[in-house]
Amino acid sequence: MDDAQYMGLAIELAKRGAGYVNPNPMVGAVIVKDDRIIGQGYHEMFGGLHAERNALRHCTQSPAGATLYVTLEPCCHYGKTPPCTEAIVESGIARVVVGTLDCNPVVSGKGVRMLEDHGIRVDVGVLADECRHLIRVFSKYITTHTPYVIMKYAMTMDGKIATHTNQSRWISGEESRRRVHQLRRSVAAVMVGVNTVIEDDPLLTCRMAHGRNPVRVVCDTRLRTPLTSRIVQTANDVRTYIATACDDERKAEDYRRHGCEILAVGRKGDHVDLADVVRRLGDMQMDSVLLEGGSAMNWSALEQRIVDEAHVYIAPKIFGGTAKSPVGGQGVALPSDAVMLRPRACSRVGEDYLVESEVVYSCSRE
Amino acid sequence: MDDAQYMGLAIELAKRGAGYVNPNPMVGAVIVKDDRIIGQGYHEMFGGLHAERNALRHCTQSPAGATLYVTLEPCCHYGKTPPCTEAIVESGIARVVVGTLDCNPVVSGKGVRMLEDHGIRVDVGVLADECRHLIRVFSKYITTHTPYVIMKYAMTMDGKIATHTNQSRWISGEESRRRVHQLRRSVAAVMVGVNTVIEDDPLLTCRMAHGRNPVRVVCDTRLRTPLTSRIVQTANDVRTYIATACDDERKAEDYRRHGCEILAVGRKGDHVDLADVVRRLGDMQMDSVLLEGGSAMNWSALEQRIVDEAHVYIAPKIFGGTAKSPVGGQGVALPSDAVMLRPRACSRVGEDYLVESEVVYSCSRE
Repeated sequence: MDDAQYMGLAIELAKRGAGYVNPNPMVGAVIVKDDRIIGQGYHEMFGGLHAERNALRHCTQSPAGATLYVTLEPCCHYGKTPPCTEAIVESGIARVVVGTLDCNPVVSGKGVRMLEDHGIRVDVGVLADECRHLIRVFSKYITTHTPYVIMKYAMTMDGKIATHTNQSRWISGEESRRRVHQLRRSVAAVMVGVNTVIEDDPLLTCRMAHGRNPVRVVCDTRLRTPLTSRIVQTANDVRTYIATACDDERKAEDYRRHGCEILAVGRKGDHVDLADVVRRLGDMQMDSVLLEGGSAMNWSALEQRIVDEAHVYIAPKIFGGTAKSPVGGQGVALPSDAVMLRPRACSRVGEDYLVESEVVYSCSRE
Repeated sequence: MDDAQYMGLAIELAKRGAGYVNPNPMVGAVIVKDDRIIGQGYHEMFGGLHAERNALRHCTQSPAGATLYVTLEPCCHYGKTPPCTEAIVESGIARVVVGTLDCNPVVSGKGVRMLEDHGIRVDVGVLADECRHLIRVFSKYITTHTPYVIMKYAMTMDGKIATHTNQSRWISGEESRRRVHQLRRSVAAVMVGVNTVIEDDPLLTCRMAHGRNPVRVVCDTRLRTPLTSRIVQTANDVRTYIATACDDERKAEDYRRHGCEILAVGRKGDHVDLADVVRRLGDMQMDSVLLEGGSAMNWSALEQRIVDEAHVYIAPKIFGGTAKSPVGGQGVALPSDAVMLRPRACSRVGEDYLVESEVVYSCSRE
């Protein structure tokens, strides 16, 4: 196996931390000696050992003279754990292959330098693009202190999210819906608009064995969320925020009594200021938000440029008719003003297609 | 190389006939002796030699004892050319590998039997699915005498075919538009609705070097196609039909004077009866139609079940807003009544995705 293959393995290990390490980055590590893997590990949970230390700890023989593959530059500062560079130097590792440098400009490159100062050979940039993609949530959060936002929707092959009679169960297939539950497990929060709560009465939990539930956020400008909704009724079990621009204390108290927390945010036009909402979630250490909104909220989120990534499920069916589209609102007037996507992958999920894209905002707008 | 690889080559050869052999099927053939290709050929044009004869003609050494790979069962009857089975027997070929049997129930299996009667070993069904796909246009036409209809549209990742100000130039990228010109070259006719002519004033020609132009068909219930439109103005150069339910002879004469031909068809509701239109095109030996209609026509075509295949180009951009969707009309009321698609391939075309699907009509509807 070559460097890229070992790094590929480290990336796969890193992904096992999805949903457990936030707001830390997912990191994986593999230790190789004489072309044999003698240790591997990943950052398993927030506050736990870093990937490098886990890999060292699991070594089946002495790592002296071995090569360490790690997806992210080892840290060289004291955080919740002592610096990994120290452990690497002590272990006698001879060479370190790094996927990508730390994205925090304050420490970027320092870990590499410290290793080199101790005579360790360091190579940087193996599968760099994949390794950067792995820490995209962390990168955004560490540099902006606002969460990474994934907008998710499912539509038919003719771009509908409901029939003309407003029926939407189901657009996507079982396999896609299962995938969404996996995604929910990996994010800090799931966000919807109050209309989705009124129309669909969703639970927004992660219905998987061992699934951790993300925090639920309902954007509700005028506090119209039904107290009888399943979200409110389960707020004592799953942390739930109602983000609102309404200052009716009596109404707010009703929600609090059911276990909801009220997030008082600014208003933008007729709706809560979504940029304010995500800023506030960031202040509360939430590094990632899955937006499962409807047509109007999706547009507001794109317009306010809070969306980083889009997951579009496309079901192989056609509804026809005049029916709701996944992104509504005002929209752009000219094709050249479109919000551009940079697709990263198109995969088959059961019967459906899933297109995952990065959102690219042009500099000229706003 | 093994049987499947040789058959794969025969399939690629067959495709070179796209647009030139209609309403005959595309067929390719490869002749192999001692694991070396000694001859290859395809059906190049309507009325020309069949693939088997072309392959035999191009043999670089005697085909005696060789194996012939052919995508479609060799014919055993006299048509525009004498039966291929005769030529195969005479050539001394020892083994014939057939992709798929002839879809015409009257002759299916007869070619194989005739070869076997002459002591030739015949194997049927190598890459059968691909070979059947290759002749899907022919299969439909030969069994129903109506053309195979491909519905094509381009939409954004949020299912729009225009912005809310009705701007639609461009949805898809250059590469996709080039692909559509290729597709036009391979079909007998291109069909649009009168609204598309009024709004977009398209030419619907194949703008490729050596590109053969398909017949153009405008569905125009009340004869509203502008005489000044580019389609009418070029009707002397490219065969053009106006399919109408209007019997105003004076109006019809105006179009005829410009070179258009009038196709008097029935009416279904407020529009021309599309099933009648395609039946009439089939009567005129047109085996395939590319539907480049708008929202309303796409729905009518699906509702009347004339569409066999859908080519959906999805551009990585979002328009938002309340704008035209690719399939409009009445639409279905319940998700379970959706028109189902069976995707065959999803490919990247430039920046866009192209999803090619077969349309599956449920038996319970209508």
